[in-house]
Amino acid sequence: MFKAIGCSDADANTATKVLLSADIRGIDSHGIARLSGYVRLWEAKRVNATPDIKIIHETPSTAVVDGDSGLGLVVAPFAMQVAIDKAKNCGTGWVSVSNSNHFGIAGYHSMMCLQHDMIGISMTNASALVAPTFSTEKMLGTNPICVAIPAGKEPPFVADLATTTAANGKLEILQRKNQDTPSGWVQTEDGSPTNDANILKKGGALLPLGGDREHGSHKGYALGSVVDIFSAILSGANYGPWVPPFPAYVPMPENQPGKGIGHFCGAMRIDAFRPAEDFKHHMDHWIQRFRSATPIAGQEKVLIPGDPEREMETERMKDGVPLLEQVVTDLKVLGEKFGIAFE
Amino acid sequence: MFKAIGCSDADANTATKVLLSADIRGIDSHGIARLSGYVRLWEAKRVNATPDIKIIHETPSTAVVDGDSGLGLVVAPFAMQVAIDKAKNCGTGWVSVSNSNHFGIAGYHSMMCLQHDMIGISMTNASALVAPTFSTEKMLGTNPICVAIPAGKEPPFVADLATTTAANGKLEILQRKNQDTPSGWVQTEDGSPTNDANILKKGGALLPLGGDREHGSHKGYALGSVVDIFSAILSGANYGPWVPPFPAYVPMPENQPGKGIGHFCGAMRIDAFRPAEDFKHHMDHWIQRFRSATPIAGQEKVLIPGDPEREMETERMKDGVPLLEQVVTDLKVLGEKFGIAFE
Repeated sequence: MFKAIGCSDADANTATKVLLSADIRGIDSHGIARLSGYVRLWEAKRVNATPDIKIIHETPSTAVVDGDSGLGLVVAPFAMQVAIDKAKNCGTGWVSVSNSNHFGIAGYHSMMCLQHDMIGISMTNASALVAPTFSTEKMLGTNPICVAIPAGKEPPFVADLATTTAANGKLEILQRKNQDTPSGWVQTEDGSPTNDANILKKGGALLPLGGDREHGSHKGYALGSVVDIFSAILSGANYGPWVPPFPAYVPMPENQPGKGIGHFCGAMRIDAFRPAEDFKHHMDHWIQRFRSATPIAGQEKVLIPGDPEREMETERMKDGVPLLEQVVTDLKVLGEKFGIAFE
Repeated sequence: MFKAIGCSDADANTATKVLLSADIRGIDSHGIARLSGYVRLWEAKRVNATPDIKIIHETPSTAVVDGDSGLGLVVAPFAMQVAIDKAKNCGTGWVSVSNSNHFGIAGYHSMMCLQHDMIGISMTNASALVAPTFSTEKMLGTNPICVAIPAGKEPPFVADLATTTAANGKLEILQRKNQDTPSGWVQTEDGSPTNDANILKKGGALLPLGGDREHGSHKGYALGSVVDIFSAILSGANYGPWVPPFPAYVPMPENQPGKGIGHFCGAMRIDAFRPAEDFKHHMDHWIQRFRSATPIAGQEKVLIPGDPEREMETERMKDGVPLLEQVVTDLKVLGEKFGIAFE
């Protein structure tokens, strides 16, 4: 499909790997189910299948990358590679990206660093679905942050989190099951608490991590804001309520202050701080100690960030990725349109 | 007092500035009320009043600083200055710190960057009061993160947050008022929900931002873990349940894997990404748009991270800092002991 819309072989390959890494890790909302959405953005001329992605400003440890409206699935790995190269030369690399699109799961990009014995950090802004503390207006995206940290004998530490109480994907699961949300996930159009999983279609909003002021939503709001500023104000992308929407049928916000969506990538070489073997030894020790913490009665064990996705990866590499009927139908329709057989 | 325990004039001056910056900003739990605690750590020989703080490893954009058991109030500003100097040379600077002590408010250190047109990031680990998701054991400190970002005509964006639902200082206020906590702040010794503000004295724990799994506590746990790893595993400080306690009467954990407490400081030069004036123009635009978001009925306005502390600063610079009777008594006793008159 990516080749059918004009992507080079290399770009199609990268974009496919990013999407499948989400499905394999159990983040179904960011995998192949989204393929038709990317294609519709290309049809609407919001995605450029043959972008000239380039560095427009740099110092030894920083760069700004212009994604030329390319798929974020391709632009973000380019930017992270720039960060990795800078880290090789001067210890760390930090790249802010403008003029991009949805980059899939943050985890893929951060995890590029692990094989180089580097810590990887990735984040992105996204179209506004989240109301800041005390606001009825939606001003921020779910703005995820991922930090991937290598270990030795233990698997890596991979924290990949939306800065909201619950990611939009979790809400979509409840919508399909026709179930209510827990408290603190969403609010109504006028900012009242609600458990309605369909409230976003009625003018409601997702809530920052914490849910309400008493439970620390000002912290989730602050973290989502930092992601927005690092991704877009450092780079010249759109921010806050001006970030382009993912669904191609939603009109672009007016008076946009920047270009496209913004990302931020960082790479820190472990041995820029201490020998990698020492670090990994202590990471193993950290992981083993946390994993062996006494669990609350009824809970099996204390998890390390990345454990649930790894368990899912093991299962799906063996049994395959189950697809919802509506995703299969969507892919079939898409395939027929572009003359690609769905096997 | 700092001079009385042997600090140099310069160090005493810095430590005092850091403490007073907390009081002025309304973070009473981290201000002068803590002075006697630092002195007791010195009496217990856990704080070195004349440390030889030095860089033990570095690359163009990174360093590891050994605090030589000095006051964190002095070690952290040293480390941030190293980060700032590195950012001047190669765009960004990142410093992990071992062998330190409690560093006061994170905000002071991050805000050192603002006058240089840099973004400042500071974090620290702390002794274990927080139970990870599903754990009855306390494994992490309240591990704060502060990000300070310069603006133009608007005041800077300063997000300074513990990675728990509520900071320990908030709990102490409820204890003094003999009030219950909201849900999701603390749990009992066996990991059950509770509203008892005194539960930490009975084996209970603070909870990561989010409160419980359904409300995203695994995200707060992940963020607190990142702070622990950046601050201590990159530097060689103690981590997890081995971080030294602040009260001098609490015994040190056994089998410590590192030295002292760890911090992590970062400085990013704005013009390593784009001209500072452009950035500040868009930060002003961001701040003005968020501040003018429609508030929920009954709320006055949507706040920008840093607003509440700034309002407090204005008030206290005018009216002074009110001190609790028990803090005044504590300071008088301390002064008499060291032959310093309390006026």
